[in-house]
Amino acid sequence: MANTSLLPLLQTLVEAGATLAFALSGLLEAARKKLDAVGVCVVAGLAAYGGGTLRDVLLDRRPFFWVAHPEWLWGLLALCIAAMAFLRARHFAPTERAMQWPDALGLGLFSASGTQLALAQDLPGIVAVLMGVITATFGGVLRDIVCNEIPTALRDHQPYAVCAFAGGWVLVGAQQADMPAGAALVLAAATATGLRALALATGFSLPRWSS
Amino acid sequence: MANTSLLPLLQTLVEAGATLAFALSGLLEAARKKLDAVGVCVVAGLAAYGGGTLRDVLLDRRPFFWVAHPEWLWGLLALCIAAMAFLRARHFAPTERAMQWPDALGLGLFSASGTQLALAQDLPGIVAVLMGVITATFGGVLRDIVCNEIPTALRDHQPYAVCAFAGGWVLVGAQQADMPAGAALVLAAATATGLRALALATGFSLPRWSS
Amino acid sequence: MANTSLLPLLQTLVEAGATLAFALSGLLEAARKKLDAVGVCVVAGLAAYGGGTLRDVLLDRRPFFWVAHPEWLWGLLALCIAAMAFLRARHFAPTERAMQWPDALGLGLFSASGTQLALAQDLPGIVAVLMGVITATFGGVLRDIVCNEIPTALRDHQPYAVCAFAGGWVLVGAQQADMPAGAALVLAAATATGLRALALATGFSLPRWSS
Repeated sequence: MANTSLLPLLQTLVEAGATLAFALSGLLEAARKKLDAVGVCVVAGLAAYGGGTLRDVLLDRRPFFWVAHPEWLWGLLALCIAAMAFLRARHFAPTERAMQWPDALGLGLFSASGTQLALAQDLPGIVAVLMGVITATFGGVLRDIVCNEIPTALRDHQPYAVCAFAGGWVLVGAQQADMPAGAALVLAAATATGLRALALATGFSLPRWSS
Repeated sequence: MANTSLLPLLQTLVEAGATLAFALSGLLEAARKKLDAVGVCVVAGLAAYGGGTLRDVLLDRRPFFWVAHPEWLWGLLALCIAAMAFLRARHFAPTERAMQWPDALGLGLFSASGTQLALAQDLPGIVAVLMGVITATFGGVLRDIVCNEIPTALRDHQPYAVCAFAGGWVLVGAQQADMPAGAALVLAAATATGLRALALATGFSLPRWSS
Repeated sequence: MANTSLLPLLQTLVEAGATLAFALSGLLEAARKKLDAVGVCVVAGLAAYGGGTLRDVLLDRRPFFWVAHPEWLWGLLALCIAAMAFLRARHFAPTERAMQWPDALGLGLFSASGTQLALAQDLPGIVAVLMGVITATFGGVLRDIVCNEIPTALRDHQPYAVCAFAGGWVLVGAQQADMPAGAALVLAAATATGLRALALATGFSLPRWSS
């Protein structure tokens, strides 16, 4: 069946394709914090793989993505070296703006694939959705913790984790409605990415706690 | 036997009942740090379940409490929404004072249950006690790390982890003296809670390192 | 064969011998941050065992070193109590200078043993080397995160993780060249320690990102 053979490929593309935007977010934060070469690599790596690795530790899944695909660690190393050689402070803001869109794609892809991996373990819907959110957002959370900042995802009032949350529920619903797995994954990812793009386009922000 | 059927129930109550006080501690710290809705939920969840989850990762136990009881995640979400709707800054200090007592109960219950789960894996006494301390205190430690503070439990000179440590040793001793499991659990929890209550009542503080 | 019986002993010595320098680094940072007795023990313990424990969680290995050797937890506790009783602020800088050398030894030993444990699981070279680097450096990273600092290992431009990285690759190469396991371990550890000692002696620092 087409789905059976396409789905693993799609999933690998899912986990691989969005990594660049996440790694660059770590790389730029490390540069702003004046970290050294080791710090740049570690923070870029955490931003790229931290969310998926934490999800796999929680789900007790092995091997991690970066263990099964060690060539991506070489890619990350090359990216960091290239950035330190060629990227200058004046490029940071444009790079960040350009990365908003692959990052939104990554948000959708990672939240959908994370939710799907948890559903494959027969976990309850809300737990699966939470795993999707962790996959999509905790790389950034770990990046900010290591850089000694309160994580942006927890304080900037922008819809980010919330889009991942919505996408995850679409996947849970689609699976319960017996939609083919590949279509459900695409629908869920498109929901999260679409909501994020909408939030970016409209500047919508989450309601504040008027405490 | 009564004990055989009561113990799991007691243990579930143990893990569930103290969660409210812990979640509220996270919720209030998130509010003070002006986190957004996502941050409030994440920090409340970390404070509530972080310690037990870290213990389970270290002990390689699955499922986590919040995976086996996903209804508690809904409860946590409802708590956060209700707090953001109704809790105002003037309520924070009184809420915190009122929570000192359920928190002391949680300290006893979590340290005893954490120690007991480690003893059930035949781990050495000091490791089991340490797992109890981690269960009872690392939710708060993770809460403070995410909020970019040095964890209160490590710097406020109040007996907190120390009470959990003492309660854990009571459980180790009671088990070696072949006390029935339920009684040992209650005795250990009462020790930790009692010591914490004594510390709160007397304002006792740990000796300082006069370096 | 001599190697077969010597290697586990060597490895235990490896994991045990370097712990003191790491624990003292945590102990001194806790003292500088004016943590309480609990904080001193927790930060010393994280510095000593955090790297190896994180590696074991990632590799899904149990038991942890401090679970298999609980007497080392007692030793750590005794060290912390002794330090709080006898160590004064005027001793901190000399202690830190004296510890540079056992710390360099620990860097070599931990990175080699961490790499070797990963290679024993047939992990790819770069993943194994990364596990060695994590073993050697993440105790210090966790120590600094808990103390609310950007980790020294990521920002001080001193070759530290880089030495562990080089030592790990020596082990990977030696194993591929069918060198006896014990000799490969010693060669790798000596490479990392030697590079670190060279860096300390020459004051060499990593190239900066001139962004």
